[in-house]
Amino acid sequence: VNGASGDAEDAVVILEKTPFQEESIPDLLKKHTKLQLQMSNDIYSTYHLYPPPQLSEIKTTVVYPATEKHLQKYLRQEVYLIRETGEDYKNITLPFIQSQSFSIQWVYNILEKKAEADRIIHENPDSSNGFILIPDFKWNQKQIDDLYLIAICHRRGIKSLRDLTSEHLPLLRNILQEGKEAILKRFGLVGSQLRIYLHYQPSYFHLHVHFTALSYDAPGCSVEKAHLLSDVIDNLELDSQYYQKRALTFALRADEALLKKFQEAGK
Amino acid sequence: VNGASGDAEDAVVILEKTPFQEESIPDLLKKHTKLQLQMSNDIYSTYHLYPPPQLSEIKTTVVYPATEKHLQKYLRQEVYLIRETGEDYKNITLPFIQSQSFSIQWVYNILEKKAEADRIIHENPDSSNGFILIPDFKWNQKQIDDLYLIAICHRRGIKSLRDLTSEHLPLLRNILQEGKEAILKRFGLVGSQLRIYLHYQPSYFHLHVHFTALSYDAPGCSVEKAHLLSDVIDNLELDSQYYQKRALTFALRADEALLKKFQEAGK
Repeated sequence: VNGASGDAEDAVVILEKTPFQEESIPDLLKKHTKLQLQMSNDIYSTYHLYPPPQLSEIKTTVVYPATEKHLQKYLRQEVYLIRETGEDYKNITLPFIQSQSFSIQWVYNILEKKAEADRIIHENPDSSNGFILIPDFKWNQKQIDDLYLIAICHRRGIKSLRDLTSEHLPLLRNILQEGKEAILKRFGLVGSQLRIYLHYQPSYFHLHVHFTALSYDAPGCSVEKAHLLSDVIDNLELDSQYYQKRALTFALRADEALLKKFQEAGK
Repeated sequence: VNGASGDAEDAVVILEKTPFQEESIPDLLKKHTKLQLQMSNDIYSTYHLYPPPQLSEIKTTVVYPATEKHLQKYLRQEVYLIRETGEDYKNITLPFIQSQSFSIQWVYNILEKKAEADRIIHENPDSSNGFILIPDFKWNQKQIDDLYLIAICHRRGIKSLRDLTSEHLPLLRNILQEGKEAILKRFGLVGSQLRIYLHYQPSYFHLHVHFTALSYDAPGCSVEKAHLLSDVIDNLELDSQYYQKRALTFALRADEALLKKFQEAGK
């Protein structure tokens, strides 16, 4: 991703290389393609291949004129890890979350069938241990390679991993078990081919669980953000207060207000 | 990644698109580049850009003639998650590891300065709590964007996370603390910009810790493979036997012998 700036008014130009398309591979390997030998050793050799323009399309997005906000969004941001203790959560993160009025009306609309009712894959209607399973917006549902669904619990007021205690084990076990079964039934993918996890920090503060195809290198499944639901269940069985006490690591961009709060607190 | 097969003898051909180079961006945007409008809406528009061949180099690796083993390595494989309990480790995984004679002579060569001595970034020579910090082979050391180093402990016989107890806390704390300091001193990257973790399963059974730049989406840092060193230390402080008792999740390819062992055991 690259931003280029003009003279009078700024523009954002995003260049993205796209994946190879299987049907164009034979063309790429034909003899009109320029090939430059780099290294040869025994049965191994490496080349630079220079494909004809029509086979190396670059997806280009232009925002013009671009506002300061557009520029900020695409400029490369430094990212920092925070190691948040249970105390830090109470003293820094929780007050910050409460001071922000994040709207989660769109979540309630789904739970109340006021929106996206036709997209629901599975529902357990129980008000305290039930949930709705629905495809994530990032998934176009055209192939299971990048399968991505979200389980949203019916119960309100569970903001994140930090609020979970052993009281929530029946809910979490329902999500794990029924979520797997529903995905097998509808999409034919078995439970052992699913990555099932929570984010901490989540992007919205109503408890939800991510289901992605294991073979899919989904955004947000790295170790500093994702927590496997199976691990969460085991930890709560071990200690009901596990997630109130434990230090949790997450990343924040340099421009995020919460990072400033941690810095002000000398963390 | 694509494999193509010939007539008489098979070959593996790997095609990889390479990242944009900052200095070639102005050339890409010059007017001799073919641009095809796709969509335009308000200030947003998208295009297909067809770059000249010299600006869209593809890294090509050829293995020829390729053995059956080469073909297997590169063919797309189904991947399955295993949830290994402490008992499973003792009854299935450990006997399997012991039956394989993985050579780790190359690790001992590093520790004994018989190889790569000039690449060492930091060493704590203590035989039980010391380690060597060295750049990983995947990192060309040309930029810190994809910084990747490995800390290899001097002490022998710690196969993986599963062997760790509170006895190893001084070693782990040394790796965390001194590793961060050495990377700050040599490469200017602060500790909060580092992802520091162990793999389970590891690719070789001598304890080592990965250090990657947080901004780098490094291979093997996803939640089903990576364990943050800070979490490992906290868990061992909580319970010395944590990693002997806890279930651990990892992925195995369909062709891996260990998967078969788990299947035979009805897991």
